[in-house]
Amino acid sequence: MAAEEPMSVRLPVSYEQALDMVKAALKDEGFGVLTGIDVKSTLKEKIGADFRKYNILGACNPSMAFMGLQKDLNLGLFLPCNVIVYEEDGGSMVAIQDPTVMLDVVDNPDLKEVADIARQHLGRVIEALRANT
Amino acid sequence: MAAEEPMSVRLPVSYEQALDMVKAALKDEGFGVLTGIDVKSTLKEKIGADFRKYNILGACNPSMAFMGLQKDLNLGLFLPCNVIVYEEDGGSMVAIQDPTVMLDVVDNPDLKEVADIARQHLGRVIEALRANT
Repeated sequence: MAAEEPMSVRLPVSYEQALDMVKAALKDEGFGVLTGIDVKSTLKEKIGADFRKYNILGACNPSMAFMGLQKDLNLGLFLPCNVIVYEEDGGSMVAIQDPTVMLDVVDNPDLKEVADIARQHLGRVIEALRANT
Repeated sequence: MAAEEPMSVRLPVSYEQALDMVKAALKDEGFGVLTGIDVKSTLKEKIGADFRKYNILGACNPSMAFMGLQKDLNLGLFLPCNVIVYEEDGGSMVAIQDPTVMLDVVDNPDLKEVADIARQHLGRVIEALRANT
């Protein structure tokens, strides 16, 4: 089962502005940002490679995570939910990992409810970002 | 396509020892640990919930990540590779996200080569942990 639509949006703002907007929109839907990987600086530092500005944010709603982990301890293999932000063509792209895709690879129907709830919230994050542009 | 075998191992050591062993084994295969989420303390702090000792490590081999990101910018939705470590029955469980599972949900055959290489290395991490116990 593929998601009906990609959870992504193009923002006509700088990478830095996009990062701030994404963090605020996630917060409004109850998701904290637990991790953030600056891909550009990490690749430069580790292997000297040049890459565009690109960040991988790890977003998590603690209540949903707790609910899901009680149903399946292996859920941590899919947490936190990745949100990528990168510069492209003078603007920024934002894409969010669809939590329901794990249902394709994890054989546990008990996770469907929490994945569906998480997807609804993250879908609203994309909608909010779209509405603000 | 499901992975042939789960990438997991039970270690007869404490959670803290398991964390150290996992980080060392990842390093031996070229994976740095970019992020670490202490799930127990995060859940306690954010929602007051009690949970077992449980960590989500974000492991990344920069060269493989760079190779993959050049083929598909959306690869960041699956990076870093999650490694979970948690206490169970007086020992510890370790499980690693199989990088090839993303091939089920990402429609890009160009990623197969790098996913297969990453899986080989991470499989050796599990083997090394097994051999050390």
